[in-house]
Amino acid sequence: MPASLPTLLVLDADPPPRLGRLTGRARIVHADETTLAGQLPHADVLLVWDFASHAVRAAWPGEGARPRWVHTASAGVDHLLCPELAASDTVVTNARGIFDQPIAEYVAALVLAMAKDLPRTLDLQARREWRHRESQRVAGTKACVVGSGPIGRAIARYLKGLGVTPAIVGRTPRTGIYGPDDLNRLMARADWVIAAAPLTADTHHMFDTRRFGVMQPSARFINVGRGQLVDEAALAEALSKRWIAGAALDVFEHEPLTPDSPLWEAPGLIVSPHMSGDTVGWRDELGAQFLELYERWDAGKTLTNVVDKQRGYVPGH
Amino acid sequence: MPASLPTLLVLDADPPPRLGRLTGRARIVHADETTLAGQLPHADVLLVWDFASHAVRAAWPGEGARPRWVHTASAGVDHLLCPELAASDTVVTNARGIFDQPIAEYVAALVLAMAKDLPRTLDLQARREWRHRESQRVAGTKACVVGSGPIGRAIARYLKGLGVTPAIVGRTPRTGIYGPDDLNRLMARADWVIAAAPLTADTHHMFDTRRFGVMQPSARFINVGRGQLVDEAALAEALSKRWIAGAALDVFEHEPLTPDSPLWEAPGLIVSPHMSGDTVGWRDELGAQFLELYERWDAGKTLTNVVDKQRGYVPGH
Repeated sequence: MPASLPTLLVLDADPPPRLGRLTGRARIVHADETTLAGQLPHADVLLVWDFASHAVRAAWPGEGARPRWVHTASAGVDHLLCPELAASDTVVTNARGIFDQPIAEYVAALVLAMAKDLPRTLDLQARREWRHRESQRVAGTKACVVGSGPIGRAIARYLKGLGVTPAIVGRTPRTGIYGPDDLNRLMARADWVIAAAPLTADTHHMFDTRRFGVMQPSARFINVGRGQLVDEAALAEALSKRWIAGAALDVFEHEPLTPDSPLWEAPGLIVSPHMSGDTVGWRDELGAQFLELYERWDAGKTLTNVVDKQRGYVPGH
Repeated sequence: MPASLPTLLVLDADPPPRLGRLTGRARIVHADETTLAGQLPHADVLLVWDFASHAVRAAWPGEGARPRWVHTASAGVDHLLCPELAASDTVVTNARGIFDQPIAEYVAALVLAMAKDLPRTLDLQARREWRHRESQRVAGTKACVVGSGPIGRAIARYLKGLGVTPAIVGRTPRTGIYGPDDLNRLMARADWVIAAAPLTADTHHMFDTRRFGVMQPSARFINVGRGQLVDEAALAEALSKRWIAGAALDVFEHEPLTPDSPLWEAPGLIVSPHMSGDTVGWRDELGAQFLELYERWDAGKTLTNVVDKQRGYVPGH
């Protein structure tokens, strides 16, 4: 193979689909968590396919030789953005766009399931008990969606379609987006509070005892962003003391959730295994998206989906 | 009380709200299943508040003295329409409109829950098992909604809002509504088949072995209409033989479902206790709707929500 071929280093548990299309155009090298540090200095491009891994933070070479471009097959970049990477001129891109609609559907599923008391219906079914209950109408309720990126905006759009009035909160107030100063007020009047923000120093444990305390006793909380947005002990307390009526977590401070976690049995909590965005075909879509970016990079064009490494997300409308 | 006051006979288990507003304008008499036959000949108006009762069919006086108007606090009228009532000049009205949005929300909840594999998520949670799965995207799927009344049309509207392509089937083909001849073809290509038709001689057991046989193995069936639309044994067989991927029944041939019914444990079946339309406040809404109709009747105006007693439902757009 000619020495001039760019080296594409792929951090993966399972190999990504479609990469074969780069045969003859890139030297593709696979890394795992143990070999990554040794391979990074020799790579032109790093594809973080195993987006659950935090290996990049540990292995990043600092000032030394390093990839010029890092792409992660995820919306969040918290797992790889170390200070050295943030300070460097290496470009970081993410999977912006792929997860918007699936996660919005997932949130709509949770909102409707909680309003219609579906978990209890399934529980009664298992006990062969016929017990009619009144359920809640979703239309006419209010939501506070925290996170103004494409995922948060898709969630708001879906909820609006169900007759819910959504308010989106972002870091920077702008047309149609509230700022952090409005958060407590909006949470206090919301029937649904939905966390879909990137994990940054500002958002770490933003949902804490004080915030759950401002919510209505009839309100419910949903996290499809990152586990560290939530103080899990505070949420468990808010649920057991009935400060709020229910919650659903798809992401957790430590994943996978271990069998001894008290969260599995927290009252009124739905636990799901970080799957909200993962609809059939998602790996293909992520692969195709990376190939499209690779074509741009290879042709010397400007990349899209470029992360602002100081803020920790792709800024934009 | 003056003898000229009209007699309003109310068939109820629990007394309906708001009827107090008719004090001094109607003689309100309550009936139960045992006293109904004796009271019917003396009533001007019958309010069937206990819509689960089939007592009207048995007690209807035939050619004798009878109410001039019967209102049922339900969308379906199958439980009261006997041949003698159908042949008489007594006007029958129903609760058209009250249940449209709640039932549409309920169907959306079931569709999303099944696509996102929520029952299995809850099952795994109970066993403290973290097991990531891919789920299904709802946008881009196809639905066949059987029933072209306001409930069926609301269901189609909600599904369309979720990116589903719905086809509505009614008794009479018209703009935007397919006819019975298209049913098998539409069921064969649908990801979701939703029963929301009135129960009539034509629709009794319309979902049988043959119909479940034309559905795709990946498709799911939902019944929010009447239990008798479905041959339940045929559905149980279709589920256990995996002719279809799943189903949800909110209504049953015999309600309440008894503890010994095999349906509680049919594979891939969600059983709920006839609650799809019953959101908080529904009884108030039904009461207010009857009062509105009563005002019209009392003023000699034409009633709305008038059932075509030959067809068994309120005809209309």
